[in-house]
Amino acid sequence: MRLNGEFETIGRVATGELELVSGKILPNVEQAYAVYGTPKDDGSNVILVCHSLTNSHHLAGPDVPGLPGAWMNPLIGPGRALDTNRLCVICVNNLCSPYGSTCPMNINPETGTPWAMRFPVITPRDAAKAQHEALKALGIGKIAMVMGGSLGGMISLEYALEFPDDVGACGVIAAPARLYPQAIAYNEVQRQAITSDPDWNGGDYYPGVGPAKGLSTARMLAMITYRSEQNFAGRWMRGMSGDNAHEWGSKFKVEEYLAHHGSALVARFDANCYIYTTRAMDLHDAAAGRGSLEEAFGGLRGKGVLSVGISSDILFPSWQVMEIARLAGKAGARSDYEEIESDNGHDSFLIDFDQMDEMLRFFFRGEKI
Amino acid sequence: MRLNGEFETIGRVATGELELVSGKILPNVEQAYAVYGTPKDDGSNVILVCHSLTNSHHLAGPDVPGLPGAWMNPLIGPGRALDTNRLCVICVNNLCSPYGSTCPMNINPETGTPWAMRFPVITPRDAAKAQHEALKALGIGKIAMVMGGSLGGMISLEYALEFPDDVGACGVIAAPARLYPQAIAYNEVQRQAITSDPDWNGGDYYPGVGPAKGLSTARMLAMITYRSEQNFAGRWMRGMSGDNAHEWGSKFKVEEYLAHHGSALVARFDANCYIYTTRAMDLHDAAAGRGSLEEAFGGLRGKGVLSVGISSDILFPSWQVMEIARLAGKAGARSDYEEIESDNGHDSFLIDFDQMDEMLRFFFRGEKI
Repeated sequence: MRLNGEFETIGRVATGELELVSGKILPNVEQAYAVYGTPKDDGSNVILVCHSLTNSHHLAGPDVPGLPGAWMNPLIGPGRALDTNRLCVICVNNLCSPYGSTCPMNINPETGTPWAMRFPVITPRDAAKAQHEALKALGIGKIAMVMGGSLGGMISLEYALEFPDDVGACGVIAAPARLYPQAIAYNEVQRQAITSDPDWNGGDYYPGVGPAKGLSTARMLAMITYRSEQNFAGRWMRGMSGDNAHEWGSKFKVEEYLAHHGSALVARFDANCYIYTTRAMDLHDAAAGRGSLEEAFGGLRGKGVLSVGISSDILFPSWQVMEIARLAGKAGARSDYEEIESDNGHDSFLIDFDQMDEMLRFFFRGEKI
Repeated sequence: MRLNGEFETIGRVATGELELVSGKILPNVEQAYAVYGTPKDDGSNVILVCHSLTNSHHLAGPDVPGLPGAWMNPLIGPGRALDTNRLCVICVNNLCSPYGSTCPMNINPETGTPWAMRFPVITPRDAAKAQHEALKALGIGKIAMVMGGSLGGMISLEYALEFPDDVGACGVIAAPARLYPQAIAYNEVQRQAITSDPDWNGGDYYPGVGPAKGLSTARMLAMITYRSEQNFAGRWMRGMSGDNAHEWGSKFKVEEYLAHHGSALVARFDANCYIYTTRAMDLHDAAAGRGSLEEAFGGLRGKGVLSVGISSDILFPSWQVMEIARLAGKAGARSDYEEIESDNGHDSFLIDFDQMDEMLRFFFRGEKI
């Protein structure tokens, strides 16, 4: 890979067809990516970061047109935990993300019309396989570590389980080994909000905006699961805007907060991509096709596994992350469980960077990364 | 009150206009009610039970056309905890419920058209005041106890705080002294689902069915908050219907469960009533207009207060119920905190009747009820 000396290099790579876990073939796969720092030929300084549901591969640096703001700035750069003087950080945009990789917004080459809901259902394992192909195409085979939070944690885990010979270590933050039914339930209600919106039109709304109200409602619900009661109570408790609590025009601050985040997502995200990506999360199950969770984790023997739970996470509670640490330990991995102590809920991994910084530096030292 | 010897007596009572907390006047208030057992003249054997969001005043006995199934059967009857041989149990249908009391489905007498969203916003305190009027009209002033779960717990608390001289004791099950912002947030997303449905039409959908999809989505979300991860995982974990997990037609069991409850509510509940009642819950704050929570609870000195939390409740976690017990104790009430140990979540008060039975009998003995 040639780097031009810029802090961030953004590109797009074509890797041909991908055989999905379902057995279906996804043709003409393209993936957007970002690179920070210079990879060594043997990949021994490469950290692959996997991103979450509505973030993108743009991890650090100034704003990039068409992409949401960088979400990992405090951790990436010279002297930072992911020290770009010695490490090379890569992030590949997830399949089914609207930010540059193959997704339902694209044209199905076989029909010449947008995929929309005719796109095949994918899983985090498919995303991991696609990202493995992307790295190969960039000349990178083995890497020092794969890591990510939330959906990014699921993809990271799948990457390590699917390609154990190509990773030295794995970091899973605020993600489970398999989705539990409450998280599936929250996802399903969000999809229901979207697909109930007549502007969704069975997914065929391109080139229009699509189901704005439905997507907004979905995001409002998601925002509750990303934060916590402590967080809401600490910020606003029962604070209201408006003079008279008994008029419909008066809104609780927490209602305004949700509405703001609902509209903001509508302005930057695609509803079909949202549907496909939440379904991918539902289908996350490290045991699927591998016998059992114990058997699935067998390949991690001798690897470093960092599992990071969040004390106030109501979406993927810390006991679900501990399950990964326990399975990894049982498999003979160097399993390290850490917990972010924070009231910020699931989103703590995007907020409490001081704790993330410390945990990553400690883990890197132990793993000689 | 004349009772005909039937186990259950259902009726409707008109109490004229009601001045709401907001200062507005609600004219021509009518309330449906049910009575089990015979009240003593001094009301000393009367237990007023307040019902929750989508239940009705039909507490016990065989099905009644137009009303949802009785929700308190195992606790009411001869020899049961609410022993109708000696106690008289009364439940008044909440204001804004679609099951017989004045609600947005009714005709506004001033305009001759349905209230719909022109109905005034109410609070649990308004419902309590209306029920106090209903009891007065039935010839009952003082009562032995007021009790209820969820919204019924809020109304019960407000009844006791508003009319301390008329109640001997108060039982609050799975309800807070004031709604915390996470519960407001869940309610707001549910209202958003309803009002985003074009069939809602600003509330003016009568005599039509209204926003079926929106109300169904709202109920699906509510059902998540009524249960728990343990409950879902214990019943289905990641179980699916359908042969191929990677097809959209295949559904997780938890998705089917939510969809079932969504449709079932649409068949029996009104969307505007749902909107008004969830808003009433948002506005629940025992401190409102009373200075502080401490001042609000002052009137409970010398009364019995039973607060019952639920170990797995994610909607009104047990620490919120403990707040009531603490405030009542501080105020000099005979404050008793109990906790239902169950994986059934918020709905435990509608399921774990064995524990409810024991707690009520114990409390009644202490209070000589």
